[in-house]
Order: sequence, then structure tokens, then C-alpha cells
Amino acid sequence: MEEQIDSVGKAFVDHYYHLFDNDRPAMSSLYQPTSMLTFEGQKLQGVEDIITKLTQLPIDQCRHVISTVDSQPASVTGGIVVFVSGSLQLPGENHPLQFSQ
Amino acid sequence: MEEQIDSVGKAFVDHYYHLFDNDRPAMSSLYQPTSMLTFEGQKLQGVEDIITKLTQLPIDQCRHVISTVDSQPASVTGGIVVFVSGSLQLPGENHPLQFSQ
Repeated sequence: MEEQIDSVGKAFVDHYYHLFDNDRPAMSSLYQPTSMLTFEGQKLQGVEDIITKLTQLPIDQCRHVISTVDSQPASVTGGIVVFVSGSLQLPGENHPLQFSQ
Repeated sequence: MEEQIDSVGKAFVDHYYHLFDNDRPAMSSLYQPTSMLTFEGQKLQGVEDIITKLTQLPIDQCRHVISTVDSQPASVTGGIVVFVSGSLQLPGENHPLQFSQ
């Protein structure tokens, strides 16, 4: 069970940032109408608002490099909460940004 | 509602790190038997295992300085998920460690 949670969390993270880096509008498949995203203090809810925010970030090309993925059950009703940290490489920048989500 | 979530999240974070920095064994009041903590890849469950881990960290005195607190509803069944980032000042260290939880 613990290994399943880890592998599901890892697979989701790989898929999430692959889409982020390669086809950001397709991230709409990863959110639902009840989904919420808090991004640097800004609260967004629903697929449209979240994808609009993500696609309008002042980041054109980028590459996420994942450092850690920690997954655990989110609640007794199911779901997994995943904590990710890594770096974000932007074109023309020598120093990657650190991120966590 | 949104402001309530923010203020509850902020109050919890202040309380959590105040206990961490000043009375770590008292953090047992913040966990339940079903609580889980994943700490740098290590999974811990239950009050005793979590508090043992936290009190045995190779950190004696420390001071957390909170930079950001982002809170949102955890699920339809209640609860709040809180994302914290900040720095961790250790005695004798000039450079604070960055952390997020």
C-alpha cells in the first residue's frame, strides 16, 4: 500500500511537470471543477481559472527538475497528498529557481 | 470563508512552529493517532512515532522564520491544507536553512 502510494505520487508528478513544461494547456485534464490552486498567495478555483493562471505565467519555456517527491494518504476518504521540491530551469538563466508545491 | 481559512491556517502555523522552537515534546497535542508525517522521505504514523522523530532531530535550539503561508480547504469533508515556507536559523550558523512543509 505504501509503495503503491509512492508510485502513484511519483507517476502523477512526472506527468504533471511533463505537461507543464511541454503542453501547459493540456494540464486542464489534471484539474476538476472543485480543484483549487493557491499560487504565491493567489487563490484560484476551477479548471478555467487555474489553467488561465498557469498558461499566463511570465514563463515561456521552462524545465522542471524534480528533487524530492513525498506522498501520503490525504484522508480516510481517499486521495494522495504529494509534496514536491525541485528546481526550475529558465532559458537564458544560469541559476535555476528552487520550487516546492 | 476564505479569510477564515487563511486566519486559521496562519494561527496554526504560528502555534506549530512556536512549539517546535520552544517545547517540541508538546507538539504531541498537534497530532492524532491517524496523523502521518513524511519527513525527508521517511514515513511516520501516530503521535508517538512522529514526536520521537521530531524530538530526536539533530537540531537542538532553532528558530523558524515564516515567509509564506498558503491555506485552502483540504476536501469536501473539512480540514485545511496549509503550505508553509520559510527559513530555519540554527545556533552558530550564519546561513539559515530554507524549508517548506
